[in-house]
Order: sequence, then C-alpha cells, then structure tokens
Amino acid sequence: MYDFEHTIDRSKTDSVKWDIADNELPMWVADMDFQVAPEIVEAIKNKADQAVFGYEEPHADYFNAVAEWYETEHHFRPKTDWMMFVTGVVPAISSIVRRISSVGDNVLVQAPVYNIFYNSIVNNGRHVLSNDLVFDDGKYHIDFADLERKLSDPLTTLMILCNPHNPVGKIWSRDDLSKIAELCNKHNVKLLSDEIHGDITFNEDGYTPVFSLPEDLIQNVMVTVSPSKTFNVAALHAATIIVPNENLRNQVNRGINSEELAEPNSFAIPATIAAYTKGHDWLKALKQQLMTNRTLVEDFLKSELPETKLIKSDATYLLWIDTKNISDDSEELANFIRKETGLYLSAGSVYGGDGTDFLRMNIACPESSVRNGLSRLKKGIELFLKK
Amino acid sequence: MYDFEHTIDRSKTDSVKWDIADNELPMWVADMDFQVAPEIVEAIKNKADQAVFGYEEPHADYFNAVAEWYETEHHFRPKTDWMMFVTGVVPAISSIVRRISSVGDNVLVQAPVYNIFYNSIVNNGRHVLSNDLVFDDGKYHIDFADLERKLSDPLTTLMILCNPHNPVGKIWSRDDLSKIAELCNKHNVKLLSDEIHGDITFNEDGYTPVFSLPEDLIQNVMVTVSPSKTFNVAALHAATIIVPNENLRNQVNRGINSEELAEPNSFAIPATIAAYTKGHDWLKALKQQLMTNRTLVEDFLKSELPETKLIKSDATYLLWIDTKNISDDSEELANFIRKETGLYLSAGSVYGGDGTDFLRMNIACPESSVRNGLSRLKKGIELFLKK
Ligand SMILES: Cc1ncc(COP(=O)(O)O)c(C=O)c1O
Ligand SMILES: Cc1ncc(COP(=O)(O)O)c(C=O)c1O
Repeated sequence: MYDFEHTIDRSKTDSVKWDIADNELPMWVADMDFQVAPEIVEAIKNKADQAVFGYEEPHADYFNAVAEWYETEHHFRPKTDWMMFVTGVVPAISSIVRRISSVGDNVLVQAPVYNIFYNSIVNNGRHVLSNDLVFDDGKYHIDFADLERKLSDPLTTLMILCNPHNPVGKIWSRDDLSKIAELCNKHNVKLLSDEIHGDITFNEDGYTPVFSLPEDLIQNVMVTVSPSKTFNVAALHAATIIVPNENLRNQVNRGINSEELAEPNSFAIPATIAAYTKGHDWLKALKQQLMTNRTLVEDFLKSELPETKLIKSDATYLLWIDTKNISDDSEELANFIRKETGLYLSAGSVYGGDGTDFLRMNIACPESSVRNGLSRLKKGIELFLKK
Repeated sequence: MYDFEHTIDRSKTDSVKWDIADNELPMWVADMDFQVAPEIVEAIKNKADQAVFGYEEPHADYFNAVAEWYETEHHFRPKTDWMMFVTGVVPAISSIVRRISSVGDNVLVQAPVYNIFYNSIVNNGRHVLSNDLVFDDGKYHIDFADLERKLSDPLTTLMILCNPHNPVGKIWSRDDLSKIAELCNKHNVKLLSDEIHGDITFNEDGYTPVFSLPEDLIQNVMVTVSPSKTFNVAALHAATIIVPNENLRNQVNRGINSEELAEPNSFAIPATIAAYTKGHDWLKALKQQLMTNRTLVEDFLKSELPETKLIKSDATYLLWIDTKNISDDSEELANFIRKETGLYLSAGSVYGGDGTDFLRMNIACPESSVRNGLSRLKKGIELFLKK
C-alpha cells in the first residue's frame, strides 16, 4: 500500500544526513529516507496553490487535530487549552531551559541520552547533571535513589526526560513516570518530557504520555510532541508544547514568543493537520516496515557479528548496539567503520553515560539499505578487530 | 502579465491580517494580498513532490542567489562568506539584541519606527533610546547632533536602523548612511541595518545596502535582508544576515544557532532561490501596481480628504498619512474608523515618536480594495469630525 523501498536520492541536496562522500551510507541523523504519506504532500501542494504566504497563527483545527491524534493513538485526550504551537522540539527545549531555569542551575538528564539536550543546557550556561541509566543484564533502568538525591539538590530546577528514550529505545512505564513526576514535585523541579518518539512504538500498549498522569502529578510538567519523527517531517518545523498548568504555560509561552519560535511557517499547520488526521494507516505500515528492518538487523548481528549485542527495545527507529566486546571507544570505532566502509553510524559516546560502549544505527531506510549497512558493518568490525 | 487584481479569500484561514470581522477590510499587517510569483509556487511544489522533509542546511546555491540578487538589483555583490541563513528578520533582530548587547544596555532606534523593534529590545531587558526622526515641512530627516549624543552614551551598544524606513517610507542616502556608520564606529556601537524593505523602492536609484559602504565603515555592521516583504513570503521563514566582519559574524552565528533560528524549513531554500533568480520581472510588475495604488491614494486624499496629508515616500507599500489636523490621538482615530467603517489601519502611535499624528495604510492589495478602503476612510474621518 505504501512504498518503503523506493525513495529519492538525497545526495547533492541540502540534506544534512546525506551531506557525505559518494560511497558513503548514512545511518546516523534521525530522519527517515522514506517518502512521507501522500496526504501530507497533497496538503502542502494545496497550500502552495493558494500562493499567498503571509503571517499566520494556528487556530482550533490545528489543536483539535493534535488532541484527536493523542486520543486515538494514545488513549488520552490532552486539552487543547494546554497546547502551544512551536517551531520544533529542540527550539522548545532550548527556550524552556532559558525561561524555566536560571543561569548556573543544574538541568537533570538521564545519560546516555539525545545529545542535543546537552547543547540546550550548556549553550545557555546551565550545568548538566546526569542520573545515568543503569545498564544491567542487557536492559536499562532508572536508579531512583540517585535520581532523588540529584533532584533534591537546590541547584537542580529542571529535568529533561526522554519518553520513549533515545538512544536506548526504552518506553518508560506508567509506574516509572509517576515516580519521576512525584520526585520532581517533591523537590520543586520542573519536568520537561520530550515525547517526540512516542508514536513509533512496537509493543502492545504503546507509550504513556506524561500529561495523562493524574492531575496532581502534572502541575509541574511540560510535554513536547511533534509529527517530525513519526511522519518524517523534521524540516516542516512544527511541534506542540503541552502544559497543563496555566501559570507554567504562560511562562513557556512568553519564552517562545519573545524568542520568535511561536509562529508557524505556511506549511506547518496544514501538513500537521493532514498527518494527524489522515496518517494513521501510514504509521501502521511504517511500523511494520521498521519491525522488519529491526528483525533483519537482529538476525544478522546474532549470526554474523556475535561480538555485538542488539539492545532489546520497544520504540524509535534507532538501534542501540552494544560493541563493548570490540572497543570501549565508540568514537574511534565509528570513525574507523566510516573511513573503511563508508557506513556512517552515530558513536554512542556523543550521548554520554555508557555510550562509549555502543553504536547507534538509524534503520529508517529501505530494506536494501539496511542490508547494505549490515554488510559494511561486518566488514568494518572485522577490519577493526584485525588491526 | 501578472494578476494583481484577483486573489484568494484569506478570511477564515490562519492569516493574522485577515483574522477580522466579516465586514472588515484589513490594511494593517505588512503582508500583501497578492498571489506570489508563479516561479515560487512551482519551486515549492517541486520540493513537495520529493516528499522527504528531513533536516537541511543551505548550500552555495542559496548564498549565490542572494549575492546575485543584490548585484543585479542593487549594484553591489555582498560576499557569500558574509552570509548566514536565519528563519526571519525579527528572529534575527531579537537574537542579535540578546547576543550583541547586554541586559540593561540602551539600544538606539529612530522613532517613529517598526514597532516590533521595541519588543525585541524591551522583551530582552534592554532599554529603548530613540533618536527621533525630525518631521519638517512634510519630510523626515535625522538630527545628527542628537544621534551622536545618544551613541556616545556608554550604555548605548547597539543601533537598529531601518533602511528604507518603515513606516515613513524614506530611503536613506549614501551620505546619511556613511555618517551613521561613522558615528557608530566612533562610539563603538554595533549597527544593525534592517533592509527588509530595500527591494520595494520607487525612485530612480533604489536604495543603498549598508554592506556596500567602504570597508572601514562596515566592520561594526550587521544587515538583515529577506524575500519576505518583496515577494510576499513572510511565512516562508527565510532571511539572510550579512556581516562583513568575521569576528562579529561568528558571534551572531553563535546566537542564532543556540537559539535554534539557523535551520531552514524544507521550503525556505528552494523558494528563496526561485524568488531571487526568477523574480525580477514579477517585482518590476509589482512596483508598477504599487505606484498605481499610491497615486490612487494620493489623488483621493488631495481631492476628498484635504484635512490629511500623504507623506511623500520612495519605498515600501506602507503609506504614512498625516492626520494631525483631525486628531493627535491616532489610536483613538484608528479605533474609531475601524469600529464605524470596518477599515483596519495601523495607528501611528504604535511606532512611537510623532506617530500619534499619523495612520499607516498598507496598499499591497488589489486596486478595488484600495478604492474600497479609501471610501471607508473618508466616511470614517467625516464621522469622526462630526462627533
Ligand atoms: C529526543 C529527541 N528530541 C528532539 C529531536 C529533534 O526535534 P526537532 O527536530 O523537532 O527539533 C530528536 C531528533 O532526533 C530527538 O531524538
Ligand atoms: C522593518 C521590518 N523588519 C522586519 C519585519 C518582519 O520581518 P520577518 O517577518 O522576516 O520577521 C517587518 C515587517 O513588517 C518590517 O517592517
């Protein structure tokens, strides 16, 4: 029904992911090589045909589409009053760091985690404080005693949660989330939950949006969502910040407005509405394809590269591959593989924590590219082990 | 050749300008009601057809298109090395205020001036210091003695120039610009020249980009340009900051990057390239239409509303109408006219300075709308004078 095998050639375009040498294969930056749902293209072309691109602001149909999506896909309808349009999740995070914490504060994260969180914290003169995830028996979990100790530091004013978690692909349980929210409440720490990966889940029950927790747990909470990862529209520049508490929402709103992050471009609104109202089937098909790709990698690693271990995950199109048996310097390993085979993976080290022992592989690409990537990976690791 | 009479109905859309009551006619926000050049629509649709909207960054073809445009239209080719992509002129200004001045500093402007300058200054905890333009014998000029006094205040670290000047429609001469740049240099004030209105000029010689001044005068200078006003693509979210001095450029670059204003959306680059490489004829035709509209207003005011005076201007599609003989409270006057006739003009008071004596009228709309607006204006002023 949808074609996830053929796509356009993005080399020699403005693509960041594909800004590579001729023989290289990029499986790093988190965008997909798949073409988007035809409904999104149609919405953009309809808007293009109107041919007037003046200043806009989102109206009820946008916020209703977001609410509807969460109700249908995630069984909880956030109030449209809680929502603000923003030009992206990273813009939202950076703005929230600036508005909701002070220079010199600690912002808590859970390493290994999406590397740009660090930029948003450090570039704004705040300090990173990590409640490192615990890797145990091939799985990650939270050290809650350590988390509480760090949240109780009076210098810690903001926590950024990744739910589901990039790069380890973990979906936090309702129980985990409640505990986190309770601890943040107890220690007056604002909780920013980045749920950009929430739609791409492979388990039975999906993920739990933090705004669906009980009312008393969500008064300190800000959630960021976006069609960006789900529908491969990163450069659509469209995201939504969901903040149940009015006072907190007003503060966040003031931040994104004075930093000019609150106005939609001409295509952000119609394309998001198209994605959220007409994209359910496409997403289902996408997840099918991603599961196929994941199985491909899993089977290959098991049989061809037993030195590696694929971390079991329930979410995201990013695979977290344990390469500790090969090297404890994932940057060196990733650079070596790229240089020798052209396969461009993300070194786990950029995510902090135990990332030095891992590589991250983006499998949102045609099956043929996954196969191509795997054979390069095998070659790269074999060469690395030989040197 | 191009149709400037028919356009789409933007009421009931997300348009800010057209978010009005049913009987109202908006001649306020500075976007045009005209449909854009067909080449821009085509570029957007071509990009839409590629159907992959991942992360992008601008390459040489973008910067070359900007350089080429300035060489052809404005007889000076800025170096592509001087340029940075940014998501809009106001985002650039706000970011520069934050990065290049300090909290508590004075930022100098020349009132009456584009009101959003004030927001960018005040929202960031800086102070507005105005070198008010002098209105004399129907024309505006700069009081250079006052300018120097204010630039020499050690708290003044940044000046925002509007070149050409919104709302008074004045094109600053090369001589004026050199004097301003010299004074800024002398007093160590950085000069930000907003040249978003530079393409829409009606005189013989066009305008002078500040980056075309002699090399020693442009080391403290930052210039913002955009296809936004020229081609009616405000919500394309595309602009360029041009900074000849490398050190200053690096600082500005750091600001827009850490505030997430430096990444283009999927359509910003191809549509800007289309505008700048294929839009020359469209712009010529647009200016023709705007001159027709301006003459229409001029003649009407002269014969039907002799209490008003249209300020002679050489640039922008924004007319500055002297209504001092009617009221010295332009906010009250504008509100009255809107309430009684539905004509929505901008009250001059929002621009500061002597703006209390003026109304601003956006004539970038079909001739029929201009006529409609004028008859409402006449009715409104007659009713106002009667009360
Ligand atoms: C956790 C997380 N948040 C945010 C982003 C990027 O968000 P945006 O493109 O909307 O700024 C990513 C992209 O990989 C991500 O993994
Ligand atoms: C002088 C001036 N600068 C900037 C802008 C807006 O720029 P942008 O839409 O690129 O933020 C306007 C719009 O009216 C303007 O008049």
